[in-house]
Amino acid sequence: MNFKKELDTRAALVEAIIKKYLPKEEGYQKTVVEAMNYSVLAGGKRLRPMLMQETYRLFGGESEAVEPFMAALEMVHTYSLVHDDLPCMDNDEYRRGRKTTHVAYGEGMAVLAGDGLLNYAFETALKSFGKAQEEEFGKIAKALSVFAEKSGIYGMIGGQTADIEAEGREVTEDLLYFIHRHKTAALIQSAMMTGAILAGAGEEEVSRIGDCACQIGLAFQIQDDILDITGSLEVLGKETGSDAKNHKITYATLKGTKEAKQEVARLSKEAVSIIASFERRNEFLEELVKYLAGREK
Amino acid sequence: MNFKKELDTRAALVEAIIKKYLPKEEGYQKTVVEAMNYSVLAGGKRLRPMLMQETYRLFGGESEAVEPFMAALEMVHTYSLVHDDLPCMDNDEYRRGRKTTHVAYGEGMAVLAGDGLLNYAFETALKSFGKAQEEEFGKIAKALSVFAEKSGIYGMIGGQTADIEAEGREVTEDLLYFIHRHKTAALIQSAMMTGAILAGAGEEEVSRIGDCACQIGLAFQIQDDILDITGSLEVLGKETGSDAKNHKITYATLKGTKEAKQEVARLSKEAVSIIASFERRNEFLEELVKYLAGREK
Repeated sequence: MNFKKELDTRAALVEAIIKKYLPKEEGYQKTVVEAMNYSVLAGGKRLRPMLMQETYRLFGGESEAVEPFMAALEMVHTYSLVHDDLPCMDNDEYRRGRKTTHVAYGEGMAVLAGDGLLNYAFETALKSFGKAQEEEFGKIAKALSVFAEKSGIYGMIGGQTADIEAEGREVTEDLLYFIHRHKTAALIQSAMMTGAILAGAGEEEVSRIGDCACQIGLAFQIQDDILDITGSLEVLGKETGSDAKNHKITYATLKGTKEAKQEVARLSKEAVSIIASFERRNEFLEELVKYLAGREK
Repeated sequence: MNFKKELDTRAALVEAIIKKYLPKEEGYQKTVVEAMNYSVLAGGKRLRPMLMQETYRLFGGESEAVEPFMAALEMVHTYSLVHDDLPCMDNDEYRRGRKTTHVAYGEGMAVLAGDGLLNYAFETALKSFGKAQEEEFGKIAKALSVFAEKSGIYGMIGGQTADIEAEGREVTEDLLYFIHRHKTAALIQSAMMTGAILAGAGEEEVSRIGDCACQIGLAFQIQDDILDITGSLEVLGKETGSDAKNHKITYATLKGTKEAKQEVARLSKEAVSIIASFERRNEFLEELVKYLAGREK
């Protein structure tokens, strides 16, 4: 397998699925829809929907019922960035080399665009019912519950809360892991657990995939923190060293970049070994996880 | 029927249901949960969950499957107030006589509390699946879709967008109705349509209930605008004449309070006649709608 070529092919398919589910820019609500789509179309690796689709394939999923969930998860991820960038949060003016939503559309509209995306994520995921037979409704309901939990106070929002409160305070390793597990890993868990559930994986399999996703999420976050230190505006399209600027404690600043890199390697190796332990194999997914751990942006 | 006594009794039951579904204030995410519960417990008439339960009863609903939706709708309503009050939106410091969420918890936490409430609303509504037999999953899925649509860009958020954009511009009657239908009436439609669907009402009945809810919502909004002009801080627990202060056009400022009052009476009469047109009757619901149109706060 030529991984990089395959990655480009699959990324294009994921992109097309996301675009297919974006709302139309029309009517008196046109501006908020424009702001929503502007935010989603700002680019990004589409990592979460891709992980969802590949986990779905790992467990033999073959229908279109996963597609609404893929688009929905990217909407949740995007809304979190839009609200995170607000002046009352991280106050970032650029992301991926483009003006952030509140700079482009104003603060009030950015709040609404974030709300609109979160709400539309659920509207979109619910479309899955329309693509399935009635006997699959139980599976979709279960996937929706995991999807909702992982983005809320017991998932991403919980992590963001702890992150905000940690600013300027002494951060224990326990708290740092809580933040990473919730702020970043929770949406990766949402991706992979939802994909597994929709494909019909059993409870024990879903639980193992949840552990695996947590390790990928932690690896991804630590890698992000390393890049925040070592990266540059040209490579990342965003300001560098913003964590240091904001006096944010990260695993990389707490332990040093060398130990942080070792931790990324350890986590991704463990994650791959879980992915390779099921009856079916998905080589692309295994390569993807290795690739993510070594990425430079 | 002693309506006022019955209203108090039923309101207390609705309040207990809402409280039952609030998240626990614990863990590293404690602060956001506190801010969420502070916002929900700031009081309010609990009009939407009550309308949902009474419409559910109107169509013969008898199970607990409606309860998670009742709590969820109040969470959606509350989140919209929390975000509406933000400095970048209406910039209100008091609501129902208490400090607004961003004043009490800071702006960043208020954004997260709003996000948390919207997300938790879906987490909560999804609990309905756990209270139902598998053959009812289709009904719940349909109720979820209406619930999600009415709070999003094709419902409440669409109305808020148009409302923000209308500020300081000339407002046509068409735009004003769009704003009212979406910003206010959509959540009343969510309440009554969801209640009807969960109780097993047919498509045509759900559609009529949707029209009825729209009229109640419009009546409610116009009454609110009249009270904004005629009310006072003592009665309402919020600043009076804020629409005029913010140069907001409302039906009451556009047509005058006399014509506005006539419109409220007309709309509520029509709404009651629809409610009274079904096979079953719910006298309390009929009285409730009349009462709401005549309320003074």
